[in-house]
Amino acid sequence: MDKNITIGVVVGSARKESYSRKTAAFVASRLPGAFETRTLHIEKLPLYNQDYDDEGTTPPEWTAFREEVRSLDGFLFVTPEYNRSFPPLLKNALDIASRPYGKNVWAGKPGALIGVSPGKIGAFGAVQHLRQVLAFLNVILLQQPEAYLGEAARFLDERGTVTNPETAQFLETFAAAFAAWVEKIRDKR
Amino acid sequence: MDKNITIGVVVGSARKESYSRKTAAFVASRLPGAFETRTLHIEKLPLYNQDYDDEGTTPPEWTAFREEVRSLDGFLFVTPEYNRSFPPLLKNALDIASRPYGKNVWAGKPGALIGVSPGKIGAFGAVQHLRQVLAFLNVILLQQPEAYLGEAARFLDERGTVTNPETAQFLETFAAAFAAWVEKIRDKR
Amino acid sequence: MDKNITIGVVVGSARKESYSRKTAAFVASRLPGAFETRTLHIEKLPLYNQDYDDEGTTPPEWTAFREEVRSLDGFLFVTPEYNRSFPPLLKNALDIASRPYGKNVWAGKPGALIGVSPGKIGAFGAVQHLRQVLAFLNVILLQQPEAYLGEAARFLDERGTVTNPETAQFLETFAAAFAAWVEKIRDKR
Amino acid sequence: MDKNITIGVVVGSARKESYSRKTAAFVASRLPGAFETRTLHIEKLPLYNQDYDDEGTTPPEWTAFREEVRSLDGFLFVTPEYNRSFPPLLKNALDIASRPYGKNVWAGKPGALIGVSPGKIGAFGAVQHLRQVLAFLNVILLQQPEAYLGEAARFLDERGTVTNPETAQFLETFAAAFAAWVEKIRDKR
Repeated sequence: MDKNITIGVVVGSARKESYSRKTAAFVASRLPGAFETRTLHIEKLPLYNQDYDDEGTTPPEWTAFREEVRSLDGFLFVTPEYNRSFPPLLKNALDIASRPYGKNVWAGKPGALIGVSPGKIGAFGAVQHLRQVLAFLNVILLQQPEAYLGEAARFLDERGTVTNPETAQFLETFAAAFAAWVEKIRDKR
Repeated sequence: MDKNITIGVVVGSARKESYSRKTAAFVASRLPGAFETRTLHIEKLPLYNQDYDDEGTTPPEWTAFREEVRSLDGFLFVTPEYNRSFPPLLKNALDIASRPYGKNVWAGKPGALIGVSPGKIGAFGAVQHLRQVLAFLNVILLQQPEAYLGEAARFLDERGTVTNPETAQFLETFAAAFAAWVEKIRDKR
Repeated sequence: MDKNITIGVVVGSARKESYSRKTAAFVASRLPGAFETRTLHIEKLPLYNQDYDDEGTTPPEWTAFREEVRSLDGFLFVTPEYNRSFPPLLKNALDIASRPYGKNVWAGKPGALIGVSPGKIGAFGAVQHLRQVLAFLNVILLQQPEAYLGEAARFLDERGTVTNPETAQFLETFAAAFAAWVEKIRDKR
Repeated sequence: MDKNITIGVVVGSARKESYSRKTAAFVASRLPGAFETRTLHIEKLPLYNQDYDDEGTTPPEWTAFREEVRSLDGFLFVTPEYNRSFPPLLKNALDIASRPYGKNVWAGKPGALIGVSPGKIGAFGAVQHLRQVLAFLNVILLQQPEAYLGEAARFLDERGTVTNPETAQFLETFAAAFAAWVEKIRDKR
């Protein structure tokens, strides 16, 4: 078994008490020993504008982010839903590291997606729109299990503990499936 | 006929030579005399974070933008596609003026959508994802004609003139359908 | 007020105890007095194949269905979700009455959509995919309120009564919004 | 190398001169020697209705189809677009072999998707909706290259030959990528 698999954790909310961030931390903590995780700080990235790359004024935050994404072995995306789709914060990060044209650094790496919402639908709309984007970016996504975690206040307490045993069990299963997927996809790259 | 209908023009690209902006300007110029248009400067808006509203640190750009959207009678969205979906720039504007919860200022107003891309698919993916968002925001969208304008370099010259007569004709038809739609939807609000 | 508005009710399931059919019946019963409803029997329609129209072997069920759709004033679609999208039964009906090319008899008429499912997500995936189709068919769809009715066994009893008062209330609000929408869209056709 | 990989070819059109069927035949002919293909005759399948399984009146065509799908090693889906989504013919086949509940025989197998249309957009809407369904069915889909083949009359002649060299080249690349994907995904099942 490979001993040094580093997963970038990408959270679609910058809110301090984000349910998505807490859920991401729980899943990260349940990955097997060979896995390390690193949270990507996407909230610092200036909004994408192609002119910056074209005119040689690429923001240094973009350059650093692209290098970080390139160095990673896979990605765990955890996102809320805003208005039946994903947050601009997350899409901005995806767009930045997909460019300049021909230099998509997400490509060919394994990934998985979790939707988290206070309502019942579990960010289904955000997750499906992201799947369309990530397929284009050639992130090799885990198909099943799906993860739509609704009514987040019922399974997370204020300190970020997953207090609902059924949800904790599901997330452990999800973490195991993701870990197996990462190892499978990486294997013959 | 109402003589003072003001349409907010929302362009999904901040690139200087944006095909979307040029297309938007052409359509705006073809609206009937009763219509005025105003370009919304969404590229200045700080990225959405719910904490700002919750903690009383709402950026003044957000407040001004929400007031501007509230004052308008309808919206024309023209967007490129980034990675098979819409640009974060545009989604950020939609999210900001949809909040705080219960204060969605897009709601109940007529709108229309145009996709513009250098490739053949005409931003179809961006347009469809936006339709899902705009339906949730209760923007009353024109259904037909659809507008997926591909191979933009073939119908626009460097100064932004629509040089292809077929495209110009289509956009005039689109402008007329949008104007009729705005008048119909506003009528009994 | 127009006294004779006839709404076609289209249910995406042929199952005898379909939750969608029961929900549709409840909403139909809550429409104002000027409205009549008629259930469209889409389960009898042979699967769409363009050859039948091209070769002059159009099934008589298709012809009758197209005439029926043409005669109606609006549509209420109520659908379950199969595998994160809509049932083929419902899409087949939509396709048949959209053809032959140029003879789409759904076009220009008002409509509304309700998703019903035994799980929590309320057929969100089915509804969103249908919205994309119905926008293309130029059905003028009610945007809000959305209707994703999950956990159907909790609000419907065996005889099809909506036993949950909150759901009944919501569906009455929905029926009223749909009726107002139909009258608005029809008004200036 | 495994010498006996059997791929089920699923075509979303029953039209005799279907562009999708011709495209599928071309791709099938370009798979490496270890691959066999078998066309699934989905046009014979009665429309899905859960009652048939529940009441013990499962149509024999369904039973045979489920057994056939179970026996296969992977799937190539080639589809036209009807009204901005997939044909009911294809969805019906997917639904039938996904049921009864818990007996989804598509699951865990590799697959790929090609959209073919007479217009420019290359069935993009059909392909994206299918991706959502196939992810749920746990078909392990090839992400890239995408295949949206528009203006089909320009690359296919009447006998089904791919006459456009660029398209032929693309489809050969696609066939090679699909073959490599099937071998990778099967390897550690």
